[in-house]
Amino acid sequence: MIDFQKVIESIYVELKDDINRGEIASYIPELSTIDSQNFGIHLKHIDGNSYSSGDWNIPFSIQSISKVLSLAFVFPIYKDTIWERIDVEPSGNPFNQLSLLELENGIPRNPFINAGAIVIADMLVSHFDNPKHEFLNFIKDLTNDQTINYNYDVAKSEQRTGFRNYAAANLLKAFDNLENHVDDVLDFYFHQCALELTCEQLSNAFFMFANHGICLQQKKRLSQSQAKRINALMLTCGFYDEAGEFAFEVGLPGKSGVGGGIIAVLPNHFTITTWSPGLNQKGNSLIGMKALEKFTTKTNLSIF
Amino acid sequence: MIDFQKVIESIYVELKDDINRGEIASYIPELSTIDSQNFGIHLKHIDGNSYSSGDWNIPFSIQSISKVLSLAFVFPIYKDTIWERIDVEPSGNPFNQLSLLELENGIPRNPFINAGAIVIADMLVSHFDNPKHEFLNFIKDLTNDQTINYNYDVAKSEQRTGFRNYAAANLLKAFDNLENHVDDVLDFYFHQCALELTCEQLSNAFFMFANHGICLQQKKRLSQSQAKRINALMLTCGFYDEAGEFAFEVGLPGKSGVGGGIIAVLPNHFTITTWSPGLNQKGNSLIGMKALEKFTTKTNLSIF
Amino acid sequence: MIDFQKVIESIYVELKDDINRGEIASYIPELSTIDSQNFGIHLKHIDGNSYSSGDWNIPFSIQSISKVLSLAFVFPIYKDTIWERIDVEPSGNPFNQLSLLELENGIPRNPFINAGAIVIADMLVSHFDNPKHEFLNFIKDLTNDQTINYNYDVAKSEQRTGFRNYAAANLLKAFDNLENHVDDVLDFYFHQCALELTCEQLSNAFFMFANHGICLQQKKRLSQSQAKRINALMLTCGFYDEAGEFAFEVGLPGKSGVGGGIIAVLPNHFTITTWSPGLNQKGNSLIGMKALEKFTTKTNLSIF
Amino acid sequence: MIDFQKVIESIYVELKDDINRGEIASYIPELSTIDSQNFGIHLKHIDGNSYSSGDWNIPFSIQSISKVLSLAFVFPIYKDTIWERIDVEPSGNPFNQLSLLELENGIPRNPFINAGAIVIADMLVSHFDNPKHEFLNFIKDLTNDQTINYNYDVAKSEQRTGFRNYAAANLLKAFDNLENHVDDVLDFYFHQCALELTCEQLSNAFFMFANHGICLQQKKRLSQSQAKRINALMLTCGFYDEAGEFAFEVGLPGKSGVGGGIIAVLPNHFTITTWSPGLNQKGNSLIGMKALEKFTTKTNLSIF
Repeated sequence: MIDFQKVIESIYVELKDDINRGEIASYIPELSTIDSQNFGIHLKHIDGNSYSSGDWNIPFSIQSISKVLSLAFVFPIYKDTIWERIDVEPSGNPFNQLSLLELENGIPRNPFINAGAIVIADMLVSHFDNPKHEFLNFIKDLTNDQTINYNYDVAKSEQRTGFRNYAAANLLKAFDNLENHVDDVLDFYFHQCALELTCEQLSNAFFMFANHGICLQQKKRLSQSQAKRINALMLTCGFYDEAGEFAFEVGLPGKSGVGGGIIAVLPNHFTITTWSPGLNQKGNSLIGMKALEKFTTKTNLSIF
Repeated sequence: MIDFQKVIESIYVELKDDINRGEIASYIPELSTIDSQNFGIHLKHIDGNSYSSGDWNIPFSIQSISKVLSLAFVFPIYKDTIWERIDVEPSGNPFNQLSLLELENGIPRNPFINAGAIVIADMLVSHFDNPKHEFLNFIKDLTNDQTINYNYDVAKSEQRTGFRNYAAANLLKAFDNLENHVDDVLDFYFHQCALELTCEQLSNAFFMFANHGICLQQKKRLSQSQAKRINALMLTCGFYDEAGEFAFEVGLPGKSGVGGGIIAVLPNHFTITTWSPGLNQKGNSLIGMKALEKFTTKTNLSIF
Repeated sequence: MIDFQKVIESIYVELKDDINRGEIASYIPELSTIDSQNFGIHLKHIDGNSYSSGDWNIPFSIQSISKVLSLAFVFPIYKDTIWERIDVEPSGNPFNQLSLLELENGIPRNPFINAGAIVIADMLVSHFDNPKHEFLNFIKDLTNDQTINYNYDVAKSEQRTGFRNYAAANLLKAFDNLENHVDDVLDFYFHQCALELTCEQLSNAFFMFANHGICLQQKKRLSQSQAKRINALMLTCGFYDEAGEFAFEVGLPGKSGVGGGIIAVLPNHFTITTWSPGLNQKGNSLIGMKALEKFTTKTNLSIF
Repeated sequence: MIDFQKVIESIYVELKDDINRGEIASYIPELSTIDSQNFGIHLKHIDGNSYSSGDWNIPFSIQSISKVLSLAFVFPIYKDTIWERIDVEPSGNPFNQLSLLELENGIPRNPFINAGAIVIADMLVSHFDNPKHEFLNFIKDLTNDQTINYNYDVAKSEQRTGFRNYAAANLLKAFDNLENHVDDVLDFYFHQCALELTCEQLSNAFFMFANHGICLQQKKRLSQSQAKRINALMLTCGFYDEAGEFAFEVGLPGKSGVGGGIIAVLPNHFTITTWSPGLNQKGNSLIGMKALEKFTTKTNLSIF
């Protein structure tokens, strides 16, 4: 039997003083001032146990990790009609996301590239009168934690400077794959990305993906099939153009964000979250990737 | 010696009842109601003579033809610094203009694709307090005609539906190749495209390109080198992905617009404008392309 | 406990008379004459039990499925130096494989696109004096079956008409990512693809991927980590541009071939092979895809 | 009246000692040993006069310049059926020629990219029993010079190392746009590129393009329309991805080769050839480009 606490602590110790910590994302001013020394790990087992080390209790900007949660929110509402507007294939290179979208006539490759997440956001904006309020409640519910909130400064900052997302949303609109006004959809999208959670809160929010769709509060959030499918999407599309690399080296479904968070899932067993804000050249947390590689090497756990 | 009036009339007669007239551009509602039977030709020789036939005196939306005029307006102001922000190479396929822009790091291929013309518009917005007013005066001056105006409904219509241009402008902004606000630049851009001129007015406005930079009013508008270079750009980039075809079949520098206008230039000799609103599959006037092919075949005139 | 025999038989019965059977691959004349009514399923559990239905005992051309076996053959020899010459990322669209190869400077996206498998073939040609003989022995060994052989007519047919593979190999050579002569490498490659196995033989050959690298004969063929990594590659890259779809709908690592075979693996449990020669539009067996979707739906088994 | 001899001599003097001479093409060993100090200019006027300076009388490898001559040879034979197999549009970036060919279903963008010239070569191989002999005679005839020959070592060298051309030819074959065997077509193609001519011989061979299709020997080689069209193709497609730049800066139809030659044409007036083997980053002769820019600046001659 694996002693998760010991494994996590040993990884923390091995990596906490690593000199090469990657680059902090600089395109959002509010994120650029984070201390690159931050490093936390948190594992939530479906048996109820938790294991953690380091800065697992400091909230950080979850950014693209939010795309999995917005998909999970929308999936029971729109069901498989989602896939009429978004594909489920890996995207390859991230540097030409608009090119891909243009070549593929406005159908985003998958829900985890920006264009795909913007279409998901559009669905939420269509469905709810106050999507930001509803989505925040969904997250508070999943984590059983009423303290969670958006960082409004981060959202505003993206609103001022997220020109590439405006380009994507307008291109979606040109292809008739956006129902609402660009500004309304992006207002929601920038807020969802600006959610701040700790490692523990993220592990808890993702609990349902390890537990056949049933969340920490024992509510059925997703059908078993929906939970499996989102796991499959995380595995094939969760890490930009490093998705194959992560599957190859770590072997778990997962999702990263430019805030330095990574969440990974072993279905039927646990969720594990790492946070270290320095990024590698592909935009994924450098120390986080190393930590998860060590974790699956040490525990010999993977879906493969 | 060529009898231009006779040539133009014979072409008019041969084509005016052609059954296949192409498709009217439908993406701008205001343009979609134009009668596809309209067909006019006007030639202005630098010796001062004019020749014309058909609907040469009806104003139409010049759309992309305006890109040559905005470049001519900005060239003497910004000189060769323009080429730090825009390239001078043909663009090939039009269906993936955003892809090209993305792959080439926000440097538009040439000033006649939309992204390039938007950068030119940005320069005018930076330079003038009231760019729309100044540009309109420039056109009135070139043509010696104070009646010319924007069609404000067409401009508004594009402002509401030109999502692809908003996408391009935001992508330029993301690459730091747009100084002003997207909305301000596109406001100017949509108006420049919504200018309405007759065939005669267009032939007169382009007089300077046939006349070493000296306009109809005998003012020096461009250096001889600048006039030549714009002619070269029209030849290589004036017809979307039919630029090679036009050079091959017609052999004159020229520019088309989705309003159905085509202007062509024989340096040292004349400008010739055709207008017929039905478009071929590449977005160029179907009857206009035929008329100009007939013109160069009958007269044996071309730059080659 | 699942009654695999019953499940497989029920799927066989449900699909065997399906009217829509897809299109037989026609580009290899020898394959085009196969009867589209053929349909077989075979499951090999690591506990030693076998379950099967239909035409599980008829040999067919395994084509691209061979790419997994050649990778497994070369992996213990070249170890991770393989990844200096081939990447591990999904490839997306199959229609532009040469474009991808060109844009990425001759480094194939993964070992399961043709260009990647050709580089693997090059490694075997470099390492063995008689690679065809050695590879055939490897397959005979894996399956404990000395009757297996290449179909030399199929190989010759590809040699005469496989211009796209010649193009890929020459492009690899241009990028200095092929050590041997194009003809020598493709001679091996066309033969590996022309191997003929039954569903049972394929399930047996893939046994090691379900069993931590230990084959049916209880020989250690791959390290546990190597077996996992090949499973990860099958999951992310095994089905051309339907890899995401297969992960999403079926949720097992797998590999298809244009001969109509599909092999899938549930690590620690079993391998399952289907064969039905008609292909869907993406080039994967139409009935085989349906059969495996039904299988994971009925059994609720998947890695997710 | 322009004193061409004086202009050419002044350009020669200004550039002959230029320190920055570009890079000699190294991919063909036989070309890599050429002295980068070589520099020649030769102008042939259709009035019969010649003007020259420097190394105008040393033969060099004409490489891609030969593509214009093979097109001129095939045009009167195949007439406009050529354009069913090759387009007439500029190609843009040279680094992804195979990508373009793949995306456009095996129809080369124009006859001056390698794939297009290979299709032209295929036509000659189909038409003649001994295409190498016939093409050489054509060149000897055009120049009225029986001493011209292929450099067989250069042709052999390309045959051994021209993998990218083998890739292109195989891709054309895969798209059914090559009638003959790849090896036969490339044997002709590598020889045509390996022709050696002096600046004078090139100016003479291109005489017909300045003279309405009538060659130096006063034979009608091309119809006036064919000559014009080839001039148009040179203007739009003659300089890889610097075609726009050359039109913009020089303003003459022209063609360059990696041997360092450039030929330009002013229709109705003259042909001018420069040779200096050092290349700029786009693969065009560095000193040659400068010389032609100086020439059109000093003489104020261009088609625009």
